[in-house]
Amino acid sequence: MNEQVSKISANDRKLNYFPLGDRGKTVQVLAPATVANLVCGFDVLGMCLNEPNDLMEIKLLDEKKIVIISADGYPLPLDPALNTAGAPLVEMINELPDNIGFEVTIHKKIKPGSGIGSSAASAAGAVVGANYLLNDFFSKPDLVRFAMFGEKVASGVKHADNIAPGIYGGITLIRSIHPLDIVPISSPQLFVTIVHPQIEVRTSDARQILRKEVLLKDAIKQWGNIAGLVAGFIQNDLALIGRSLEDVIIEPVRSILIPGFDEVKLKCKVTGALGGGISGSGPSIFMLSKDKKTAIEVETVMKEIYNKIGLAYHTYVTTINQTGVKIVIG
Amino acid sequence: MNEQVSKISANDRKLNYFPLGDRGKTVQVLAPATVANLVCGFDVLGMCLNEPNDLMEIKLLDEKKIVIISADGYPLPLDPALNTAGAPLVEMINELPDNIGFEVTIHKKIKPGSGIGSSAASAAGAVVGANYLLNDFFSKPDLVRFAMFGEKVASGVKHADNIAPGIYGGITLIRSIHPLDIVPISSPQLFVTIVHPQIEVRTSDARQILRKEVLLKDAIKQWGNIAGLVAGFIQNDLALIGRSLEDVIIEPVRSILIPGFDEVKLKCKVTGALGGGISGSGPSIFMLSKDKKTAIEVETVMKEIYNKIGLAYHTYVTTINQTGVKIVIG
Repeated sequence: MNEQVSKISANDRKLNYFPLGDRGKTVQVLAPATVANLVCGFDVLGMCLNEPNDLMEIKLLDEKKIVIISADGYPLPLDPALNTAGAPLVEMINELPDNIGFEVTIHKKIKPGSGIGSSAASAAGAVVGANYLLNDFFSKPDLVRFAMFGEKVASGVKHADNIAPGIYGGITLIRSIHPLDIVPISSPQLFVTIVHPQIEVRTSDARQILRKEVLLKDAIKQWGNIAGLVAGFIQNDLALIGRSLEDVIIEPVRSILIPGFDEVKLKCKVTGALGGGISGSGPSIFMLSKDKKTAIEVETVMKEIYNKIGLAYHTYVTTINQTGVKIVIG
Repeated sequence: MNEQVSKISANDRKLNYFPLGDRGKTVQVLAPATVANLVCGFDVLGMCLNEPNDLMEIKLLDEKKIVIISADGYPLPLDPALNTAGAPLVEMINELPDNIGFEVTIHKKIKPGSGIGSSAASAAGAVVGANYLLNDFFSKPDLVRFAMFGEKVASGVKHADNIAPGIYGGITLIRSIHPLDIVPISSPQLFVTIVHPQIEVRTSDARQILRKEVLLKDAIKQWGNIAGLVAGFIQNDLALIGRSLEDVIIEPVRSILIPGFDEVKLKCKVTGALGGGISGSGPSIFMLSKDKKTAIEVETVMKEIYNKIGLAYHTYVTTINQTGVKIVIG
């Protein structure tokens, strides 16, 4: 972890970025969707996606305030302390001199409650964009630390399994939250198919239905699987990734909230997906495939199932985003 | 997994190895000690050591029987079904024609009950040696499957976290027992210091004191750590290995059976060890170090602590054995 911020005085900070951070300067960022948990890595693994993205504009202000603007009329909370992009910036400017603030304009493309990291995208996009305007004054662990305040606003819990991949890109392990320990996990380029059945599962509800205790024998299976998944990603072993995408603890409980889940999982694997499961706390379901052709066939299977059920849905076929939040115009 | 055995007839088997397996032929093997669990990988991780080793001689017989000989008068059970080297060979010859058997002479160097895989060494050594005499007729997963019957004799449970590293060498993940799924985990060459305080902890007792349920929040910490440990080994990140060698579930319960444990762990880390903990179910304690100098300093710390406590002990300074059971004379 970079402890830079706490070790230098406010005066040193001024010297570091005041000549660099131009007031009125604006940056545009693409803030990506993310898949938390990755089946067997509940609360510790996450993966960044190339699609969909929120589009955000961040402007550096010369007074200590955060302004939130919803560009497309989406009913976002405009009080910064209650907004998932605003709360992280409130934390950030509290570690800066008094005459620094940000205005954030959000084009919300990732639907809140979809389970693909909508709140994290806003939070990660805001802090990466703001830090760009400060000439990368803060470290990535600092940005994760700020952005987690956005997750607290959204779900009551400062989890980092969407935030960290959003900021680092790729697949990330959050080995520990206290102290924050983020480990980028290298992986082969895989294709990701997502289906978002249009029902809302609140993260806080999805947490409440989990048992506080688990059987030791189930926990052992789970840590065998997460160890296999991490080894599979790093050692580029697609079959091992597939075998390890198994969750005996969380999925059996949460999947009952998602109509069609078992059928989607089974048929997508039969179609050739390596495996997959609930994205975050749902209701979106993700599947990994080794090539685009399979990923598109998997999408077709998903569409057929939700057409049959008669539930509206969105699908995405995308890839792992290896860089995280992208600066579009800076 | 190799399903070869169940798919070919007894006659096919004869064709495969009868001309090759010479009756009366003898092989000598070094059967290595192993460290199971590796702190956060209870029941799923193990590591093979270059020292100490059992020395075993295995002879191919022309009748269906297993003969066990204790070379140095150590009171081993001589009934094959009750012997940790014999039980695996009983299973093996049941998958062979009727006129195949083995005589096994054991020079027991790894003290039973020490926690560094004494029973697994006998089992792994027996099956690797026997398979050498059969010109490697069986696959490694087959050998693990046979050898686990030795663990059942020793502790009542067919675990593979000593067997698999003994047969594969290096660090192995046992992702699953049913079906058997063994994943070799690459690692940097590390130095290992072991202290074996001369008290006996029975594996079965060490299992009984564990709770059947664990807190979900503790399980999450554990799978964060095992993911970090596996990533650290494969990505050659020594600091990450050190941070991940933490166990919030098993060690707090089992370490109370080992006098001096907390002091050993704390002082060895202060001395420069990356980390470590209980080896298997104890009472041995292992510590990983990045170089030999540190590993020897760690040994000195261990000696000082047990001298002060007044408990007899053995220590070993060794390295990771990357090949497993070694053929000495074949």
